[in-house]
Amino acid sequence: MSAPTRDALSFPSSSATQIDPYLPEPRDSSRILYPHVTLTYATSLDANLSLSPGVQTALSGAQSKAMTHYLRSKHSAILIGAGTAVADDPSLNCRIEGVGGYGGVGLQGQPRPVVLDAKGRWKVGEHSKVIKLAKEGRGLGPWVIGAQDAPVEDGKYKALKDAGGLYTTLPTDSSGHFDWSDILKALGAQGITSVMIEGGGSVINELLNPRYIGLVDSVIITIAPVWLGKGGVQVCPDARRNEGGVKMTVGKLNGARWVPLGDDVVLCGRPGWQ
Amino acid sequence: MSAPTRDALSFPSSSATQIDPYLPEPRDSSRILYPHVTLTYATSLDANLSLSPGVQTALSGAQSKAMTHYLRSKHSAILIGAGTAVADDPSLNCRIEGVGGYGGVGLQGQPRPVVLDAKGRWKVGEHSKVIKLAKEGRGLGPWVIGAQDAPVEDGKYKALKDAGGLYTTLPTDSSGHFDWSDILKALGAQGITSVMIEGGGSVINELLNPRYIGLVDSVIITIAPVWLGKGGVQVCPDARRNEGGVKMTVGKLNGARWVPLGDDVVLCGRPGWQ
Repeated sequence: MSAPTRDALSFPSSSATQIDPYLPEPRDSSRILYPHVTLTYATSLDANLSLSPGVQTALSGAQSKAMTHYLRSKHSAILIGAGTAVADDPSLNCRIEGVGGYGGVGLQGQPRPVVLDAKGRWKVGEHSKVIKLAKEGRGLGPWVIGAQDAPVEDGKYKALKDAGGLYTTLPTDSSGHFDWSDILKALGAQGITSVMIEGGGSVINELLNPRYIGLVDSVIITIAPVWLGKGGVQVCPDARRNEGGVKMTVGKLNGARWVPLGDDVVLCGRPGWQ
Repeated sequence: MSAPTRDALSFPSSSATQIDPYLPEPRDSSRILYPHVTLTYATSLDANLSLSPGVQTALSGAQSKAMTHYLRSKHSAILIGAGTAVADDPSLNCRIEGVGGYGGVGLQGQPRPVVLDAKGRWKVGEHSKVIKLAKEGRGLGPWVIGAQDAPVEDGKYKALKDAGGLYTTLPTDSSGHFDWSDILKALGAQGITSVMIEGGGSVINELLNPRYIGLVDSVIITIAPVWLGKGGVQVCPDARRNEGGVKMTVGKLNGARWVPLGDDVVLCGRPGWQ
């Protein structure tokens, strides 16, 4: 018996075929060190992810939402920062028609939700959407990555374990940040062959930093034809300078392809330098 | 005899037909109050116009450059702020194949360059590209709009007049800014039926402000798949709030069309509210 298809989304194959070249190829999980990393986000024309910090802003249309779920179906994990988890109480599952829980068998095609939470900000528990969905058989239990020295509130281990998830830790630097090489190696060691990184602002701007952009294989950005104005959460990485101190382009996308989708556009590319 | 076509650019009709619906219709100059306003600019993915204030950053490719000149050929004036004039020493003419100076007769199809200069920052003179081009018969002489009470340096009137341009003034508010209604009415009164406003950052952010966006008929934005990073000149208008003080979307583009052009995308639309 297959699972019910209520709430299931579908993404047209005409759009999918344009995006597929930027998605991970199936790989043998026993032979990888780093997973394929797809960085994806949606912004306004003024590069804002949301109107204000901690506020969820619906930027993109129904077709872009279906695309996000299509992308999730093509990755073995999806990753967000704790700020987004706190602000959005996200579902972090895949609702594309045919995956497990949405017409498919078991949990086939469901990505592993991963939440980075170095400061212990996300109070995940029975009330969290991602936990409820896992218990309903409509998503995998989330993995939370905390700092090695951070306290963990009562019940977090149990709530995660009961949903099929786990709590694990990694070292942080003196500013309380993880090293992205550590994060990706830890995921690779757990059999994750591809991870779709969805935000929020801090995570995206960190990964676009010259120090880390080399770890990103593909970037998929949705742009909506709106302006949100000053005071929003903006995608704008740290500046890059040459040896003489002169500012340079931080990064570019090679093999860029623009795919109009409803009122929005989707940009796919592979990060590089100019 | 037609003028030489050296340096002339051409823009493919396949792209032009997609953009034409957003361009001004020919109108009788004796019957208009406000010209058709097309706001146009090129940004990075992080909404930067340039790497740093006062620095010209080549963002878009050869096809986007040809498009800019195609757009110029469809407007009776092009307008920039003094900051851009000072930073770029711009040509402000139209180099599309077939206009006057580039294969066409006389100055047919050349737009009137207009520079807003409330603080008298642009030292226009014989050395300026726009003056040289006007004297070579490859562009119209520029109009400079200054503040009514601003001093004007020696030689500016003469340099402009000798090139077929002029210096005129408008009132400014207590912060030294013009009112955009005044600017557009002044252009309309001089027979300008359409104006393409090209930047820089201050001009664009002012026009996207809720106070003025209603004066803009079309917006044409080129987006290049690069990130410039913090410290650049960014397009991000002032925030808009509802009566309860809650932030709202500043503006949106209706009838949005995304036209891939080389590595870049061109977004055309008509400004509105959500």
